[in-house]
Formats: sequence, C-alpha cells, structure tokens
Amino acid sequence: MTQLPVVKHILAANESLAEENRALLRRHGIFGLNIMASPGAGKTSLILATADRLPAGLRPGVIEGDLASSIDADKIAAKGIPVIQINTGGNCHLDAPMVGNALKHLPLAEIDLLFIENVGNLVCPANFALGSDMNVVVAGVPEGHDKPYKYPGMFAAAGAVVLNKADMIDVFEFDADYFRRGLEMVNPTANLFVLSCKTGTGVPEWVQWLTAQRG
Amino acid sequence: MTQLPVVKHILAANESLAEENRALLRRHGIFGLNIMASPGAGKTSLILATADRLPAGLRPGVIEGDLASSIDADKIAAKGIPVIQINTGGNCHLDAPMVGNALKHLPLAEIDLLFIENVGNLVCPANFALGSDMNVVVAGVPEGHDKPYKYPGMFAAAGAVVLNKADMIDVFEFDADYFRRGLEMVNPTANLFVLSCKTGTGVPEWVQWLTAQRG
Repeated sequence: MTQLPVVKHILAANESLAEENRALLRRHGIFGLNIMASPGAGKTSLILATADRLPAGLRPGVIEGDLASSIDADKIAAKGIPVIQINTGGNCHLDAPMVGNALKHLPLAEIDLLFIENVGNLVCPANFALGSDMNVVVAGVPEGHDKPYKYPGMFAAAGAVVLNKADMIDVFEFDADYFRRGLEMVNPTANLFVLSCKTGTGVPEWVQWLTAQRG
Repeated sequence: MTQLPVVKHILAANESLAEENRALLRRHGIFGLNIMASPGAGKTSLILATADRLPAGLRPGVIEGDLASSIDADKIAAKGIPVIQINTGGNCHLDAPMVGNALKHLPLAEIDLLFIENVGNLVCPANFALGSDMNVVVAGVPEGHDKPYKYPGMFAAAGAVVLNKADMIDVFEFDADYFRRGLEMVNPTANLFVLSCKTGTGVPEWVQWLTAQRG
C-alpha cells in the first residue's frame, strides 16, 4: 500500500504497542513466535506438531488469528493448550493492539512458548510487529517452489522458514533447490527446515533448534 | 482494515476508475475476469488450461499481478498469448488504476476474453473492483476444506469458484461436502467447478460454462 501519512502513523503506533507486548512477554519469561503463511500452508498443524514434541517444562500457549471462525482455536483447545481466538472481522493481518488484548486473557504465568498464528496471508502480516521474538514463515510444498521470488517481503522478514508437506515433494515435482536459492536471495540468514507435520519427518530437528533459540 | 475516512476515499476513487475500465472493455467487446486466490492455488495454471481449450474465435489476453517477478507472465507469453505483468511492489492487491494502465499496453482489438490474475491473497483483493465482469475465486485442495469458513469475504465476492487440484482430494482427505456447505453458507449463488488443471479433469465443463457466460 502507498505510504500515506496516516498509514505511517498507524505503523508507528503499532510499533510502540508491540514494544509493550514484548516487555510483557519478557517479564513472564515467554518466548514469542509470530507464525505467518498462506492460507492452508499448515500453521496450526505446525503448532500442534511442535507442542506435541516440546521438552518437559516448556509449556505452550497459542493466540489464533483468523478473519472469522474458531476452527483453529478449537483444535488447539482440544489438546488442552491455553488458547485465545482473535477474529479480525476482515482485517488481513494481526496487529499489536489485538495481540495486547489477547495477552490479557491468557494465563501468562503458565506459558513458556507463545505461538501467535497470524491471518493466512503471505503479504500484509510482515509489515506489522506484534512484539514476538521471532518471525516464522511456513510455506507448503503444494504452493510451488517460486514463492520466495514472488513474495520476497514475507520471506525477507523471517528468522526461520518451515517448508511443510515435504512428503509431497515428488508428487508436486517441487524443486527444493530452486526454493532454497530464492530464499537465500531475499534472506541469506534465514534458517530453513524441511519437514512434514503429517508424517513427522523433520519435526524433531525443528523443535530442537527452536528450543535452543529460546535459550 | 478499519474504515478510516482516507480508506473510504481511496475505495470510492478506485470504484470510479473501475467503471472507466469496464466501459473500455465493453467498447472492445471484451469479457473480463478477476482471478483471485491464495498463493499457489493455481491461478496461472487455470488461465493456461482455459486458454488451451477456448473455442476458435475466442482470443485470450492476460494481465498478471504480482508483488515481484515476471515468472507468471513469462509462462503466458511462452504460449503466444498477449500479456502484461504488473509488479505491485509490495501492494497486496491489484487496483483499478493499475489495471487501467495495463490496458493501455494490451492489443485490445485482438482480445475477447481478458484474464486479470490478481496478487495471491485470499483477503484484500476482494475489496477492490477492477472493472471486470466476473470474480473467479480459485481454491486448491491442499489448502484444506475449511477455507470458505475462514475467508468468507473472498468467497462471498465470487461469481464462480474453481476448486483446483481435485486429483489430490483423496491424498489430502479433503471433505468436498464440507467445503461446498461452507461456500453455500457465504454465497448461495456461486457456481462451483471441481477440476484439475494438471490432469484436465473437469476443465472442459468449466470452459463451456465460462464461454456461455460471455454471451
């Protein structure tokens, strides 16, 4: 979107509230992840697969962002994980005020690792800081290997990139080298994890790395 | 996004320019389609599969919208189809001014059916009229059967919905009835086509219907 003055003002206000969220998480010793992806790439599946494999003593919590519905939050709640659903009512991304409100309703003393699942959108969420410690971008093999070239802003903003549905690489004739080169072009320092939430392949390596990042 | 006055003003200005595009297409007897979908659902594949099967005398043209790259336009041009690539430079959707500029560079006298491929995004493009005659929303089976429930605004704006990658319905345990019920809930009049651009199944029925719509 063209950088109108009012948009700049909104971004600055958002940044300031993101800092407040960051401080609140820090006070509670919570490591926060902003999970971003296209619709259906597997954000919720990644959260569930990760939560299932966390080492003892590392307790997950989730904020679910969607335009509408509580389909994802219901899946998380069914596992006994603390979760708040944000319905953005048409807004194409989460922002810091929404996350700040959601944090008031989570039992922060009982959470060590907070997954914030953003609205499914490979463009807009990258522009709005939430106060998390790391951006994780999830890409699904069926979406095609050209995504880093076509959506560079989102991949440039990632600390980690998870390539999900890796069990489908042959079925979709997915060129993993082409994907990797595209990612390196826009973000040479991003860590790439190739895994399948469905089969579990590659998930332990991702969880091990993530756990180490928390420090 | 909150309906700030400035945003309302932009939408009104966009609507007025969309009317100009619509009038220009009408003068040239061109039927225009606004193709919207998540990243990687198969918008370009649908355009290519449709163009391949058009009856003689119905000449296609394409406007390609992407944040960056000319990957899709290159595929279209390789088939000898007139095409213009719009790089939005970060903008999460096409708008009427962008399309108006692109129309100046297309040989309108040689086009009967214009495909406008929007930026891959299941949220924002629905809010911006381009001057087309019909909105077509493409959903891919691997994205999951819950998309109409989670992205109602996009599906509500569709004249036709194409469910692509139908050859993957069993592989992804896709519940087509659940998808259909969700679509009917938000848009009872949308026409649904279940097809596979890869195998060609269902594509002739879609092309026949589309050709009839043009009148």
